Amino acid sequence: MDGDSLNAIVEGVKIGRSRELGRAVSLVERDAPESDRLLAEIHPRTGRARILGITGSPGAGKSTLVNSLARFYRKQEKKVAIIAVDPTSPFTGGAILGDRIRMQELYTDRGVFIRSMATRGFLGGVARATNDVVDLLDAAGFDIIIVETVGVGQDEVEVIRTVQTNVVVLVPGMGDDIQAIKAGIMEIGDVFVVNKADRPDADRTVTEIMMMMSLVEEHGDWVSPIVKTIASKGNGIEELDAALEKHRGYLVTSGELDRRNLERVRIRIETQLKERFVGRLIQGTIGAEGWKSLLERVHRKEESPREAASELLDRVHFDTDR
Amino acid sequence: MDGDSLNAIVEGVKIGRSRELGRAVSLVERDAPESDRLLAEIHPRTGRARILGITGSPGAGKSTLVNSLARFYRKQEKKVAIIAVDPTSPFTGGAILGDRIRMQELYTDRGVFIRSMATRGFLGGVARATNDVVDLLDAAGFDIIIVETVGVGQDEVEVIRTVQTNVVVLVPGMGDDIQAIKAGIMEIGDVFVVNKADRPDADRTVTEIMMMMSLVEEHGDWVSPIVKTIASKGNGIEELDAALEKHRGYLVTSGELDRRNLERVRIRIETQLKERFVGRLIQGTIGAEGWKSLLERVHRKEESPREAASELLDRVHFDTDR
Repeated sequence: MDGDSLNAIVEGVKIGRSRELGRAVSLVERDAPESDRLLAEIHPRTGRARILGITGSPGAGKSTLVNSLARFYRKQEKKVAIIAVDPTSPFTGGAILGDRIRMQELYTDRGVFIRSMATRGFLGGVARATNDVVDLLDAAGFDIIIVETVGVGQDEVEVIRTVQTNVVVLVPGMGDDIQAIKAGIMEIGDVFVVNKADRPDADRTVTEIMMMMSLVEEHGDWVSPIVKTIASKGNGIEELDAALEKHRGYLVTSGELDRRNLERVRIRIETQLKERFVGRLIQGTIGAEGWKSLLERVHRKEESPREAASELLDRVHFDTDR
Repeated sequence: MDGDSLNAIVEGVKIGRSRELGRAVSLVERDAPESDRLLAEIHPRTGRARILGITGSPGAGKSTLVNSLARFYRKQEKKVAIIAVDPTSPFTGGAILGDRIRMQELYTDRGVFIRSMATRGFLGGVARATNDVVDLLDAAGFDIIIVETVGVGQDEVEVIRTVQTNVVVLVPGMGDDIQAIKAGIMEIGDVFVVNKADRPDADRTVTEIMMMMSLVEEHGDWVSPIVKTIASKGNGIEELDAALEKHRGYLVTSGELDRRNLERVRIRIETQLKERFVGRLIQGTIGAEGWKSLLERVHRKEESPREAASELLDRVHFDTDR
C-alpha cells in the first residue's frame, strides 16, 4: 500500500467513515506492515471512549444483553461498537434465527459497528488484535466500545484486563458451575448481572454471588453491585447503565482509571516486545539453520527447552542508559 | 531448597514415586527457581509417553469419556495421567455428585495421576505449565497422558498444538454451535467422537462432521475417523482406542510424530524466550524508572505502544555466529 492510500485511511478513520474504518480494522487484524504507522497516527486521538467488557459462560445471554445495552445507548445517540471474542456468540456467527432478527436493527444502523474476532489465527493473539481494533474505534469517535468474551482461557483474561469496566453475566441455576469458575471470575467483576432474572431461583443466585464476593479479597473501596436483568425483554438495562455510570465515577475519582489505562499500555508494549523479539533473536544470533539444529538437539534430548532458551538469551546485549 | 532436596525430588520422579512427583509438579506449576534444573535433569527421560488431547465444549461429556478411557487403559495395566485445563471439568472441581462417585475409583488408584490446572495465574501461562507437567509425568513413566481442554481461547490452542493426537468431542443436537466453532476445531481434530450417541440425532451429527471435514483443507494422508460413544456406559471406548492406535501408527510411519514433537520443542523454547526477555530488556536498557516514564509517555499519547516497543528493540544487540 502506498503512503497516500494509508493517509486516506487515517483521515477516514479520524472522521469516523465506515469504509476506511473497515479497511483499517482489517489491516490491524492481520497485523499488516502498515499497522505500526496507522496506529501511531491515530494514537493521539484515543482515550475518549468508554471500554466495557461483558463476560460470562455460553448460554448466559451475554449477546442479548449486549444487544439491549446497544439499543439503550443508541436512544441516547451514542455511537456504539461491539467486538465479540466469543466463538459461541450470535455476533460471531452462532446465532439462532431469533437472535439474528433482533440484531438486524443494529447491523443496519450506521451508528453501530459490529466485529467478531475468531479466537485463533491472529498474529500476536486475539488480545493484541482486539486492543488494536479498540484503538481504531476509539479514534473514530465511538462513545461506547463493548468487548464480549467467554472469560475462560488466558487470552481472554488478557482482553478483560484491558477494559475499563468489566461486567460478569451469570444466570440462575448454575450451581456447581459458579463454584468452578468463581476463583477467577469473582476477582474481575466490577459489576455483576444476574440475567434471566424471571427464573425462580434468581434471588438465590444473587445471594450466592454476595457470599462468594465476601470470600474474595477486596480491591479498593469499590463494592461490585449486582443487577438483575431480563435482557430479552430489556428489563433492568437502565439499572445496569446506572451501575456502569457509578463505576465510571469511581474509576475517575479514585485514580483507578489512570491505573487501569497504564496497565493497558504496559500489557500492549510487552506484547509487542515479545512478538517481535524471537524472530530478531534468531536472525541476530544463530540464524535459521542454527535454530533448526538447536530444535533438533532439544528433540534428541541433548538439552532441555529451558537450557536452549538460556543459551540464546546469554547472547543478547543491551544499550544501557546508565 | 538445597541441592540435596532437589536431587531427592529428581530421583523420586525418575522412579515414579508419587510424593516426589507431586512436589515436582508444584515446583514447575509456579515456575519456582528450581524448575530449570529439575526439568533439565529429567529431560533425557522424556519422549516415551503417549500424549492425548481431549477437546470439546462444556457439556459434551469430555470428563466422562476421559474417565472411561482411563479405566480402559488401567485394565491393560498402563499408567495414566489426566491433566484437566477445563474450568468446568469435574476433575477441576465442577463435579456433580455422580461424576465424583464415578471418579473415586480413579482417585484412589496409584497408577493414575490427576491434576487440574486453573486457567489463570500460571507464570508464563497455562500452556507453559501444562507442558512442563507433561514432561514430569512422561519422565515418571506414565504411559498415557491425557490433557482435557475446552478448546476455546488461544492459550488452549497452544496446549492442543503440543499433544500428539487430538480428540474432538461433540454431542448430537449442537447444530449452530458446530457451525460457530467449526473453523478452528475441524482443523485440529485427529479423531472425532460423537458422544451421547444414544440420542436420536447422533447420525446426523456424524454426517455434519463429515460434511465439514470435506470443506477443510486436507493435512497429509490422514482422514480423521469419527467414533460414536456413550461414555457414561463405556460404549465405544474400544473403538476409540482402535482409532487412537491407528493414528499413532500413522504418526510414526508418516514422520508426522517427529514433526509434531519438533513443533512442541519450538513452541516451548519460544515461550521461555518471550517470558524471560521483557524483564531483562527493561533491566538492561532503561531500568525500572525509565520503564515507568515510558509507560507514562504512551499513556499521555506522546507515542504509541508500537513505537515504544520499536525504540526498546533497537537497543538490543546479539552475539552472532556469522
